[in-house]
Amino acid sequence: MASDVADTTLADAGEARIEWADGQMPVLRSIRERFAQERPLEGIVVGACLHVTSETANLVRTLAAGGADVALCASNPFATQDDVAAALAAGGGEVHAVRGDDAEAWAARVAAVVARGPRITLDDGADLLAAIHLARPDLLEGMLGGTEETTTGLVRLRAFHAEGKLACPVIAVNEAMTERFNDRFGTGQSALDGILRTTNLLLAGHTLVVLGYGWTGKGIALRADGLGASVIVCEVDPLRALEARMDGFEVLPALAAAERGDVFVTVTGGRGVLRSDHFARMKDGAVLANAGHFDVEIDVAGLAAEADAAREVRPLVEQYTLGGRRLNLLAGGRVVNLAAAEGHPAAVMDISFALQALTAEDLARRGGDLEPGVHAVPEEVDREVATLKLASLGVQIDTLSEEQERYRRGLVG
Amino acid sequence: MASDVADTTLADAGEARIEWADGQMPVLRSIRERFAQERPLEGIVVGACLHVTSETANLVRTLAAGGADVALCASNPFATQDDVAAALAAGGGEVHAVRGDDAEAWAARVAAVVARGPRITLDDGADLLAAIHLARPDLLEGMLGGTEETTTGLVRLRAFHAEGKLACPVIAVNEAMTERFNDRFGTGQSALDGILRTTNLLLAGHTLVVLGYGWTGKGIALRADGLGASVIVCEVDPLRALEARMDGFEVLPALAAAERGDVFVTVTGGRGVLRSDHFARMKDGAVLANAGHFDVEIDVAGLAAEADAAREVRPLVEQYTLGGRRLNLLAGGRVVNLAAAEGHPAAVMDISFALQALTAEDLARRGGDLEPGVHAVPEEVDREVATLKLASLGVQIDTLSEEQERYRRGLVG
Amino acid sequence: MASDVADTTLADAGEARIEWADGQMPVLRSIRERFAQERPLEGIVVGACLHVTSETANLVRTLAAGGADVALCASNPFATQDDVAAALAAGGGEVHAVRGDDAEAWAARVAAVVARGPRITLDDGADLLAAIHLARPDLLEGMLGGTEETTTGLVRLRAFHAEGKLACPVIAVNEAMTERFNDRFGTGQSALDGILRTTNLLLAGHTLVVLGYGWTGKGIALRADGLGASVIVCEVDPLRALEARMDGFEVLPALAAAERGDVFVTVTGGRGVLRSDHFARMKDGAVLANAGHFDVEIDVAGLAAEADAAREVRPLVEQYTLGGRRLNLLAGGRVVNLAAAEGHPAAVMDISFALQALTAEDLARRGGDLEPGVHAVPEEVDREVATLKLASLGVQIDTLSEEQERYRRGLVG
Amino acid sequence: MASDVADTTLADAGEARIEWADGQMPVLRSIRERFAQERPLEGIVVGACLHVTSETANLVRTLAAGGADVALCASNPFATQDDVAAALAAGGGEVHAVRGDDAEAWAARVAAVVARGPRITLDDGADLLAAIHLARPDLLEGMLGGTEETTTGLVRLRAFHAEGKLACPVIAVNEAMTERFNDRFGTGQSALDGILRTTNLLLAGHTLVVLGYGWTGKGIALRADGLGASVIVCEVDPLRALEARMDGFEVLPALAAAERGDVFVTVTGGRGVLRSDHFARMKDGAVLANAGHFDVEIDVAGLAAEADAAREVRPLVEQYTLGGRRLNLLAGGRVVNLAAAEGHPAAVMDISFALQALTAEDLARRGGDLEPGVHAVPEEVDREVATLKLASLGVQIDTLSEEQERYRRGLVG
Repeated sequence: MASDVADTTLADAGEARIEWADGQMPVLRSIRERFAQERPLEGIVVGACLHVTSETANLVRTLAAGGADVALCASNPFATQDDVAAALAAGGGEVHAVRGDDAEAWAARVAAVVARGPRITLDDGADLLAAIHLARPDLLEGMLGGTEETTTGLVRLRAFHAEGKLACPVIAVNEAMTERFNDRFGTGQSALDGILRTTNLLLAGHTLVVLGYGWTGKGIALRADGLGASVIVCEVDPLRALEARMDGFEVLPALAAAERGDVFVTVTGGRGVLRSDHFARMKDGAVLANAGHFDVEIDVAGLAAEADAAREVRPLVEQYTLGGRRLNLLAGGRVVNLAAAEGHPAAVMDISFALQALTAEDLARRGGDLEPGVHAVPEEVDREVATLKLASLGVQIDTLSEEQERYRRGLVG
Repeated sequence: MASDVADTTLADAGEARIEWADGQMPVLRSIRERFAQERPLEGIVVGACLHVTSETANLVRTLAAGGADVALCASNPFATQDDVAAALAAGGGEVHAVRGDDAEAWAARVAAVVARGPRITLDDGADLLAAIHLARPDLLEGMLGGTEETTTGLVRLRAFHAEGKLACPVIAVNEAMTERFNDRFGTGQSALDGILRTTNLLLAGHTLVVLGYGWTGKGIALRADGLGASVIVCEVDPLRALEARMDGFEVLPALAAAERGDVFVTVTGGRGVLRSDHFARMKDGAVLANAGHFDVEIDVAGLAAEADAAREVRPLVEQYTLGGRRLNLLAGGRVVNLAAAEGHPAAVMDISFALQALTAEDLARRGGDLEPGVHAVPEEVDREVATLKLASLGVQIDTLSEEQERYRRGLVG
Repeated sequence: MASDVADTTLADAGEARIEWADGQMPVLRSIRERFAQERPLEGIVVGACLHVTSETANLVRTLAAGGADVALCASNPFATQDDVAAALAAGGGEVHAVRGDDAEAWAARVAAVVARGPRITLDDGADLLAAIHLARPDLLEGMLGGTEETTTGLVRLRAFHAEGKLACPVIAVNEAMTERFNDRFGTGQSALDGILRTTNLLLAGHTLVVLGYGWTGKGIALRADGLGASVIVCEVDPLRALEARMDGFEVLPALAAAERGDVFVTVTGGRGVLRSDHFARMKDGAVLANAGHFDVEIDVAGLAAEADAAREVRPLVEQYTLGGRRLNLLAGGRVVNLAAAEGHPAAVMDISFALQALTAEDLARRGGDLEPGVHAVPEEVDREVATLKLASLGVQIDTLSEEQERYRRGLVG
Repeated sequence: MASDVADTTLADAGEARIEWADGQMPVLRSIRERFAQERPLEGIVVGACLHVTSETANLVRTLAAGGADVALCASNPFATQDDVAAALAAGGGEVHAVRGDDAEAWAARVAAVVARGPRITLDDGADLLAAIHLARPDLLEGMLGGTEETTTGLVRLRAFHAEGKLACPVIAVNEAMTERFNDRFGTGQSALDGILRTTNLLLAGHTLVVLGYGWTGKGIALRADGLGASVIVCEVDPLRALEARMDGFEVLPALAAAERGDVFVTVTGGRGVLRSDHFARMKDGAVLANAGHFDVEIDVAGLAAEADAAREVRPLVEQYTLGGRRLNLLAGGRVVNLAAAEGHPAAVMDISFALQALTAEDLARRGGDLEPGVHAVPEEVDREVATLKLASLGVQIDTLSEEQERYRRGLVG
């Protein structure tokens, strides 16, 4: 099992990082201990196309502890931690990931994982499963299923399924209840972390505009408010817009918000959310960041085309001058918590990857009985993750008495 | 159409109250204006078993404007506003509701509505629909359907359906997204309003225990925190417990919380949530309130049985002495926002009743094509309510461009 | 000691109310117990011109326990609780207070207290001390001093002193640190309580304008935000305006805010804060409340003069119609937490009155050695109140080690 | 004017950084523009011993624009930005600062500034003024005065003055109202920024203990709460402890908090706040950070002495193992927002340095008429800064009418 990594001498540094993350991933650790006993994935080839980080390393080791034969590539080459990749490879894992790979190099790494013939796939953007459908449709019949971690990936997969092309079941890990907590609390914190690291702005007294009020947008609005910013929300969905207003935020159309914001964060899952019309209205000094999966939410090409000048004024801060106004783009419009901070905190990934591990176990146990299509995470998996997480926090909760349980079901009273 | 109300001379006072509420119900008003043009409920008998308040009066008038023939009784006789009942009756409506009715008198009022042979029912606890099933099963075949406003009612109806006994479709108004906002923001505020009116306690510096972290429990926790209380949450569901913890609240088993709280609020939908074991651990001066639909969450009989003495120390505050400690029960354990304050603010009921009105219209339009069972509010009704509400708040939002809409569906990009 | 009260038969109800308040005033109770032992006010005549409420009754009893001979009148006759007055009188106290007294009757009650020749005065608006200066200047030389509870009273007293007319020392109880907490947390909560009781408005989704960002204004803004309102602050002081902005609130000139607010609360200590220009810009349905001491902040006479019509639409809600718009004035522009709710929670008054009691003790101990003028509460009194309050909450804190204490003073390190 | 800087080739990078900061310091910039016109510091030698950062560079340039002859050294050599020092030197400024200087080298840099014979000093810890008193007492008589930026420096200076040794006036910039906002909002944000950058911890679901509830401690507690942590406060002052409790935080003695915290932040200004007894009770994985000026709040030597092992697990994270538990010390116990993040955001320093500039102007205008001792910032300086800051935020406020002004002074009404 040959690995492709940038620099094998980084293995020790990567190992320390993996260990630090492990210290904050007690849920996954408790699963790993059980997996080592029960070996529920014995002999199954698992292909993973995820951010190659210290947290992912702990997931890979958990699956391996359960008996799986895991091959890993990167869902986003800019997020790859080369030291972690080196450590995994040094420990005998199969890794195909080099930070900063161009599109061609990256595609070759994905192909290397496809070539292993995985029966379970773990995706963060649906790239691995798409590659299998394209290059190796022969594998699909024998597959137990895949998991998908992002909204963006699910949109792709559902469109694919609507056209009748999806040939295996996929579990929407991203839509589990415990994952919603991650979007809200994890990305909420880490997106702001990325903005502060790159700009060192003071949020108190300033106005932050969140475009998109899904779970992640809610988290960003909540944390920006918690850090003292005045928050404006832009939405296209009336239900979400109303919730934002009831949550106490000002809700405006994006063009109106463009004139008010000091910081803008896109997190809609859509494209061209901030574009020429908005740039034209923004204040001198405005900061633009994207927290959505793909780098298409801010029209960077359009911004560059209209600018009189551009230069890097701080690491990861590109300043575009438009008619005397300076607009500061963070991390080239790529997802700011990954590109400019360290992505999700380990405690957040602990939940995501506990879901991944238990879902993989569930797929193995089912032995391929699910129909092709996108399926929800089984509720018992979701509850098991919550229960393990509460235990890790030392939180105890109540249980219903038998009589209360009967009342709840409407059987008495 | 004979009405039964407590005192017809209160009509003028009731009319002023209805008008005040109407001033805060712009969504329902805009529906009423359309209904008056379109008459979508022409000639349909609608039976409503709801809290008889000024807001309900505006719903009744909206349905009537749409052509319906409405008969109203009270879902909870302690919540009836006699002046409002008088005003409705004076205006030619049919009302059977007297504040403080005992169980027998109340049942007779419900029976009077059943006797009208409603084809659509509006329920707040499923009592009217239950009465029809019991007393007039012949009506069920011709029914267009019912709506239900409470979790408690839905539990009853689903248990009923599971036994194969539910003979008409019921729409779970309570589970619409816009209703969730009401549970959170409306009951969150009004439950605390009830507690402050009865006790005049300062929340800052004190500890409030919320038992149950459903939508309403979340709202109470949020508002108690916003008023400066330290909040402890008790739950039996690990997903909800985890969310409470991530929301920043302390989560404890109820017995442990019993020793810490200054104020306790039950809102689980269950029974016997606070009982002997908890009373025994509470501090001198503790305040006990219930914000759930039924008065079974606090074991009042058990409290009375164990107390050395009981007396009313302020209006709606009954003080029980147990071994030298004084426990203060609010409103006899009945739902505190209705029994001790004025229930939901009109702006909240505006959304609920807009949902009711549009759902009734939808049931009429369908002409009885739904299967027996509990159904969700159609998403277009939910979105229409949100859209009307945003308009009433003067909030404008964006729409996707055609290209963005295609991207969202995964057709490009 | 003849008392003037409205109805002596209310004594039992008043006694229950006083006892309820006592249950929430553990700090004052602990002082009362010590006073009963030490009798620091033995034989001293104390005149009190305060809100005649259940909490004040506990202060009066504390002073009496310390040996004082107390005579009480009302600082605001609309705040008088007749049942409490009756209970105090029944217990042998001297009370001159009847709810709703007109100006003449009220002045006679104050005169009755002056006639007792107090050596210590307790004021809430400086009326008693002003009356002594006017009617009985002969008493001033023998006075030990007075206390004042309100900003408004202090403005009067300092202006008086600046003209060389103040002939005795006055302690600015209102400016103690522990009192600041009361302004913020107590009035913050109770002003909103008064608004909710009178209007039953839902704050979430609505905009509340606070005019004045002193301690009380801060509390109202904090609690309105905590209840889900969008908050706008108006100020004339740049330091306070900047603090409001950094605290995350929108800051606007009052004329601009007039167009945006759903609810307005004045709390500046000034006059004519909301007047013709503002009324002309307000939205239909706007609610106007005052939380400042005097009823001069909203120009009620001007509002009445410009209105086409006026009527009471709910208890304590007067609706003025101006060119088709309806403006709703609460409690006639009088201080809303007293006039429309129950004033400060007992736990808040516990701190105020602990300060009053300990300050009275301090004045007695000094024996008249303070110069005429306005003085700060001695820091040791302030700290003692905080210490007693923490004890009552069961909160323990640390003390510095001897070495740490020396380091703090810069003696080492 | 020879400068000592680490690497003159860094000047361009430093200049970009200074310019970025300038973009966020509109208040200082408006003062600089006025100073360039009015030259209020013409020919005066100003010695500055401050953190050598991009923001300080803008202050130095503002003073120079006003005509001053400025010499700069570092108050903390670990905070020096070598590129900024290079840029200032390249622009003709006098700078004596090299990042990482040891104590001896640092003292020599301070001596170089003393040698210039400053008539105004700007201090951040009182080191420059102390050095003048020690080495060049002859300069003191001619001095116009100094400014001091830290609580710690003021403690030193007041102790010095109490012994009769302070020979010139010092303005306590740190105690201006606008500075309080900085402590709260600036350090509140940046201390947490430092913690997140070093650990990438998720705060939601975890407990953060703040030791010290002064202005900075309040800011840290506020922001930690805003980021979702459960916050515990430890204090020795009953007034501050009570405020923390009323603000909704749990208040505990430090030994009890030691068992509960996941993250600890000291910010007391004292010494040995976390020491052996606390380390012994902490949980495995606890994180220790200091946000106070000096690195004496956490007993690092004691921690090292008791540990079985120590190693760096991430940059700036030293992990000590005590009997199987791992305690993670950030930045060696040095002030975390400077050592692990970028110190105060520029917008915060904008206020501090506007105060410094206007205070220097005030000292020059007075021409030495202040007595030796520690003096408050003149209120008009404080208000001027607030006014300029509001203007920079585009915030307009009201002014009192003449009649309102007279009412406020108690002259009417």
